[in-house]
Formats: sequence, structure tokens, C-alpha cells
Amino acid sequence: MPDLYSELEKLAGSDIYPFHMPGHKRNVESTPLKGAFRCDITEIDGFDNLHDENGIILKAEERANNLYGADKTYFLVNGSTCGVCSAVSAAVPVGGKILAARGSHKSFYHAAYLRQLNIEYLPVRMIKKYGIYDGYLAEDIENAIANSEKGTVSAVFITSPTYEGVCSDIEGISKVCHEAGIVLIVDAAHGAHFGFDKRLPRSAVQCGADIVIHSVHKTLPSMTQTALLHVKGDRVDRELLKRFLRIYQSSSPSYVLLSSIDLCMKEMEEHGGEFADNLLKYRKMLENSLSGCRNIAIAGLDELKDPAKALIYLQTEDMTGQQLYDILREEYHLQMEMAGERYALAILSGWDKKEGIDRLISALLDIDRRISQCRENTADRSGEKETKADAPDIEDKLPHRAMKISDAWDKEKESVPLCRAEGRISGEFIALYPPGIPLIVPGEIFDRKRIDEFNKYLDYGMNLQGVLTKERVGKKGIIDGREVICVRQR
Amino acid sequence: MPDLYSELEKLAGSDIYPFHMPGHKRNVESTPLKGAFRCDITEIDGFDNLHDENGIILKAEERANNLYGADKTYFLVNGSTCGVCSAVSAAVPVGGKILAARGSHKSFYHAAYLRQLNIEYLPVRMIKKYGIYDGYLAEDIENAIANSEKGTVSAVFITSPTYEGVCSDIEGISKVCHEAGIVLIVDAAHGAHFGFDKRLPRSAVQCGADIVIHSVHKTLPSMTQTALLHVKGDRVDRELLKRFLRIYQSSSPSYVLLSSIDLCMKEMEEHGGEFADNLLKYRKMLENSLSGCRNIAIAGLDELKDPAKALIYLQTEDMTGQQLYDILREEYHLQMEMAGERYALAILSGWDKKEGIDRLISALLDIDRRISQCRENTADRSGEKETKADAPDIEDKLPHRAMKISDAWDKEKESVPLCRAEGRISGEFIALYPPGIPLIVPGEIFDRKRIDEFNKYLDYGMNLQGVLTKERVGKKGIIDGREVICVRQR
Repeated sequence: MPDLYSELEKLAGSDIYPFHMPGHKRNVESTPLKGAFRCDITEIDGFDNLHDENGIILKAEERANNLYGADKTYFLVNGSTCGVCSAVSAAVPVGGKILAARGSHKSFYHAAYLRQLNIEYLPVRMIKKYGIYDGYLAEDIENAIANSEKGTVSAVFITSPTYEGVCSDIEGISKVCHEAGIVLIVDAAHGAHFGFDKRLPRSAVQCGADIVIHSVHKTLPSMTQTALLHVKGDRVDRELLKRFLRIYQSSSPSYVLLSSIDLCMKEMEEHGGEFADNLLKYRKMLENSLSGCRNIAIAGLDELKDPAKALIYLQTEDMTGQQLYDILREEYHLQMEMAGERYALAILSGWDKKEGIDRLISALLDIDRRISQCRENTADRSGEKETKADAPDIEDKLPHRAMKISDAWDKEKESVPLCRAEGRISGEFIALYPPGIPLIVPGEIFDRKRIDEFNKYLDYGMNLQGVLTKERVGKKGIIDGREVICVRQR
Repeated sequence: MPDLYSELEKLAGSDIYPFHMPGHKRNVESTPLKGAFRCDITEIDGFDNLHDENGIILKAEERANNLYGADKTYFLVNGSTCGVCSAVSAAVPVGGKILAARGSHKSFYHAAYLRQLNIEYLPVRMIKKYGIYDGYLAEDIENAIANSEKGTVSAVFITSPTYEGVCSDIEGISKVCHEAGIVLIVDAAHGAHFGFDKRLPRSAVQCGADIVIHSVHKTLPSMTQTALLHVKGDRVDRELLKRFLRIYQSSSPSYVLLSSIDLCMKEMEEHGGEFADNLLKYRKMLENSLSGCRNIAIAGLDELKDPAKALIYLQTEDMTGQQLYDILREEYHLQMEMAGERYALAILSGWDKKEGIDRLISALLDIDRRISQCRENTADRSGEKETKADAPDIEDKLPHRAMKISDAWDKEKESVPLCRAEGRISGEFIALYPPGIPLIVPGEIFDRKRIDEFNKYLDYGMNLQGVLTKERVGKKGIIDGREVICVRQR
């Protein structure tokens, strides 16, 4: 089957002159973005319409559909963001209730705001060693459903794999949800590569979720902002789902992004096994080479099942995750995806080059040696700091909730010094970015633990969004050095 | 100032290896979309964050801001669609009231649905000769505000220029709105090229609107799905506006799209006058060359003030707009933007090539001759059909409304044969695409005029979205040949 790109290429090579949008008229001589401009068109004859597809885009969607085994697959040009918003909007009525993991992407919280939903959170479980959210078992969901008022929950929202590569038991959770007549939405934005090899985890589509959202750009070779939404079964009204996909996406979708999705699907159709081979080979190289390190280790696939996420963590307190990230970037020119408190996260892909992996290995071996050496030199002064048995304990209880997100976010607000925020209701989201998962959401109450945690992150120089600092907003209007937005008190 | 693209290009040429998204790892050897992949990154150090911009993206936004003269300009990667949704959501509270032109883009109606708004329509005025919506004068808005309950209207929403190039008196309308303490939102998606030369209309930003949305891809040389949102003054809460821009756009915005906006702004900064010169020159060529035609004419700039829209209309009934469009495409390989009942619409740009304009002129002269010749040959049989004094009269009264959009669209529905829909409440939007402006919206009542109009469009083979036909949905479930979705009757 011809792919969308080759059809666009055929058009670009033809004598058909564009008296239509875009205004650049595919005039590639005038732009450095040549390849992109060449196949950038609008919905002209023969090129279908993403929002009402019945031709070449439908065919491309069917290719993706066949690869993942869904009943219906949609191409998305506004990222997994619009997929999550559409899925939640279609599965839960305005004012309805949804069970969700706290570690959900902000687009989930945005959908809850737009639709005035009540969120009931699943119990929070952390992998304390890394300070990241753990996955869920079927019984967690079973208990949560049993604890909620019968018949009130419309959907369960789970992220699997997470940003850090943690997987939940989607197969078991699907069964539990479906027995209760509840829709299961899986934000698998990070798991588009799952299921392409039997050594990789199975995809959430194979495991029976009703709606699965895949970013194709995160781990597969497609352009940023591209994603897929898969539907299985008829628990979700497809017309309603399509309505929200039309609402949350541009009415002028980019054919460059669309063709990039289709090229990616074609690549995975033809070379998916090879992609998985490469990914697993690179992963293995990394693990093997670092096995002798004293200060640096890679989280094992037994814990974080996704091989595309290399969570490089520090077994010593001599260095923070942010420092490791900075050193890799500044001294070795290796750009990581993110820094956590005790780790740096690298994304691996089947399109990586061996040269890149070799450079990462040699840098990490070098840094490991430097940490040991540095400790030996200063041992007489500062004593041994390595291998603290437990990483810092992280509160696994959520802040108390005073009101729902949509009520709090729309209330009048005021800025309050962070040190005096205890007991106040938050009027904003506060999150570390990346990944942007909220630490507090509008309507929740600031407690001492949260305030200490935020101060610590800011001291570490981490990117904490939602707290006003002089660096972030300038001195204007900031009385104290750190302020937060609270619901105004009478 | 360096542009975003050149910074991305510098990164691509450096030895910094990507252990981050996207999964294609800028491995350009493996893809035909080379130029695009090369500068496709995620929010890494030094490259800012669209949703919390304070570096290179902010600088790029400031360049655009300076060009248009707004107080603040935002780059959009989900098209004018997300700009319209954000503007309406920020300017009008949930359940609030907005005055709007009926000929608004569907994203306006989507925002009204999401926010459960009451829409009060401005009186509908048509340019009957072409069957398109006319623009508004200040007094139209003044009267509409005077006729509405005092203090209930939060915003006025106007499209100017329209898809066909009609302009409203934005300066006068701004004054009227601001005297009444009402926000003016102008959907100027089609007018990003305004204001770059004194022979072009002034931009809505210059005319004092509070929020202006510009698609940069429609008439300027930027990639499809790119847009700008400009704010002036403080009638709109900017924090709230930013909130909705974050909600309605991907959290993984494409740097290819972003850099394409900045390249476009740099082009207009450096060569905006040249762009306008070319556009006006091409327009003049077209007008002059067709002045002698008997059957084909171009709407004058006195009526449709936007030179980028060449509305090529038929002064004869021997051919429909769709036929003209099809002949241009099939026989002359010239792709128009759209077909109306009596016209075909061509988009002109300063990046057009003279060769393209020459081909269009020669095709139109040819078609004009053919129509005359054909009429002469058949004159004895069918008589003279040319130059009907008036184009078909189009109803300028809106259908009656039974309930608001958000109520009707969420009601239970049923499919009803179009011929028996009179008196029933529509459960869907029905629109000709392009441009997708609704002819009926959920909650409005089908009347005889509407039903006849829809049948006529379908007979003409026009793309009428929202009516179920055998061609569109297959035979399954369609009893009659044409069905519409209505609110279910008890």
C-alpha cells in the first residue's frame, strides 16, 4: 500500500499548481525547511480529511490499526494531549466520576477541569528507591471500585508505561473494569513500541483496554506532536469520541505530521522486529557495561519493564540527579530526557546509533570513577556518604482535598508566600517539569510535607512549575522569594 | 536576532547526542522527511518551553509581537482552532453569553459547547450576488448590544476577513464594544497578511480588538496548523488565556511548526513589503486579464477587500462553481481552495510564482471562451442563460432555536429522513466543507427552506457534512437516501 508521504511526494512532483492554502505554495526554494514545505498541503481533492476520513487517511489509519490490533485507530496531530482529553470527555459525562492514578499527565487534569469531573484517586504507591510512582495490580482497581459508591464511576484512567517505564497489569485491570461495566482508558503515550517483539511488554491494546493513547514520537521514529488513539469494543460511544477529536484538534491538520505517522507505521510494519532488536541490544550494552560501577546503576527490567527508559540512578549521595544530568550535558554533550532527584533518565530507541550508546557508556564509566576518586580524596574530611540504604522517603498520602479542580481553579485567587501557605487551598497546579505530573492540584490543601518538598526541589534548582520565584516572574509583585497561588480567603 | 530554525540547525550540526524524545533521534538518513526530522526536538535545555516560555520561544513571539503591534503574542501549534477556543473560554465564563456572527468557524461553536455558552447571533446579512456572508458595521454591533439584556454579554466574536475576503469595520466595532465594557475577539485567521503594506487592509490588532487570532499558514509562508494569538489591553485575564492555551495544545509542541512560524515572521520582517508587492501584482494581473470576459469575473476589492482571495464567479448559469472548480483541476491541473454554488475561490500569496498566475489566467480565458462557444452552438435549442440579474436568493433568517448547543448536542438522538425532518430539532451541525460554517447547529429546528437548500447542495455534489448519505456512510443503517440526526422524540 502506498504511504501518505509518497502520495504527497507524487503531488509535489506533478504539475498541479496550488491556488489553496498554505500560503507558502510549496515554494521550497525560498525556505530552509524544504522537505517539510514540499509535502505541506491542505485538504485538497484526493487527500482526504482527518476529521471526516474516508480515503487515503483512513487507509493509513487502518495500517496502524492492523499493527496494533485495535477495532479503530485515529491519527492525532495535537499529541497524546488531545487523545487523553477526547477519551476522558467521551467516556465520562459532565460532572461524572473517574478513578485515576495520581501520576496522570496534566492533560488528564485538564479534561477533568473542562468537564467538571470528580476524580477519585487510586492509592498512591511509590518505588521509594527512585522516588517514582509504582504501577497497579488488578486487585488495586478491584478494591477502589468496591470502595466507591456503586454505579457512580464511569471510567478508570491508568498510565502504563509511565514516563519512567513502570507498567501496570493492564490485562487484569481490563477484566476487573469490564466486570464492573466500567471503561478502561490507558494513557500509553510512552508505550507505542510495546508488542513489536515478544521480549517487549504487550501493548495495552492487546491487553484489552477500551481506549489506548500512544504518542508515536516518544519512542518510535515519528515527529513530535504525533499520536494515535485506539478503540476496542463498544463501551465508548465512537461518535462522541470523534466529536471530541474534532474539537481538540486543528481543523487544518498538518500533512507533514500525518505523513510522518504513516511513514513510522510503515517502518514498524516492515522493520518492527529490527527496531526492537536494536533497542534491546542497546539496552543490554548499557546494562552490561555499567554492571561494575560502584556509584551509578541502571534500574533493571524486572522493576521498570520498558527497555526504552534507562533510569540511571545514583547509589551515592555525593551527586544529585540534576548534577549527573548537567555533567552529561555540559562535559560529554549527551542530552538526557530529564533529571529526577536521584537519577537521570535516558530514552533509548531502535533508531539510536551505536556511537551514541558507546559515548553514553564511556561517559558514565568516567563519571563513576570520578565520584569514587573524589570520595577517596575527601574521605578524611567528610566521611563516607555512599549507598544510603533508602532513598529519601516520599509521602505516599495525597494532600487533603477541599473542593474539586474545576471549582478551585475558577475561584478568585491570591498569591501567598510558600512559607505561610500551610492550611491554604491551592488555586493552581504545582508540578516538576518534566514530566509535569502535579504534586498538588487546585482545591487541595498545602501541608507541611508539601511545603518542605517544594522548598527542597527549588533549592536543588529543579524546574518546579506553579511556584512563583524571582527567577521565574521577575521581582515585580513577589514579596517573599517563593510564592504560591491560593484560593482567596474572605 | 537569530531565528528558532537557525538555533535548531546549529544543534543539528553539533555533537550533542539526543537521549531524549523524539524516538527518531534526528536520524535523518533513515527518513525522506529529512529537513523536518533534523530540527525536530523536544524541550531540551536552551530551547525553552512553549507553555512556560522565557527564552528562545519568548524571543520569537516578541518578534511577531513587534510586527503586529500587540501587547502580547503567542505561537500556536494547534491552529487557529485552539486560539479561538482559548479566546472564547477565557473571555466568557461557563454558561455566559456571547454575541457572534453566524458565519463563525466551527471552533467557535465547539468552544460554546464546551463552555455551555448562550450564543446571541448578530443579524445575518448576505452578499446575495455571491451567496456569502457580508461584514458588519459598528452600528450593527451597537444595536445588538442595545437589544441584549444589559450586562449579560461578555464578548463579541467577529470573523474578519472571512474565508471569502469580506472585512468588517473592526475599528468602529472595537470602540462600540469597549464603550460597553465588552471584549472584542476577532477571528482573523485569514488576515495574517493584513497591515504589511498601506494598500492592504489594516490588521485587526491595529484596529483595537482585544484578542486577534491569525493563521499564519493560510496566506503567509508558514506550515499548515500554525497560528498566532495576539492580545491587546487588559480586558481579558491573561493568566486565564494562557491556561486555555495550555489545555487546548499538545504538551509536546512541534519545534518544526514553531520554527516555521518564526521563519515566516522573519521573512515578513525583512521582506514583508516585497510579499505585499507580489501579492498585489498577481492580483492586478488576474483582474486586468479577465476584464474582457463575458462569463467569468473576479469580485472587486471594493466588495471583498482582501486581495489574497480571488473569488472567481460565474456570470452565467451555464456552469456551476463546482464545475468550474473541477474543470480547472482536471483539465488545467490548477487546484482551487474551494467551490461555492456560483464561484471557485483561489488563494493568492506573495510566494506564488508568476508561472502559476499565468496558467490560471490562460485557463480562465479559455473556459470563458468555451462557455460562450457552447452557448452559441446550443442557442437555438436552450436559449440564452447568461447574466441572471440576481444570484439565487439565500434566506437571511436563521432557523428557530429550541435549545442551546450544549444541551442539544448531548441529548439522545435518532436518524430521520431529510424529507421528513421539518419541525424536528437538529442534534448535529450541518455545514458545507470548506469552509465548515454551520448551516444548522444542534438545538435549531429544521424548516422547509433549510431542507430544500440541503437537497440542492447534495444534488450539486457539494461536500455537505452532517447529512448521512449512502455515499458517505454506506448503505448500512440508511433507510432513505439522505438522513439527518435529530434530538430523539419521546
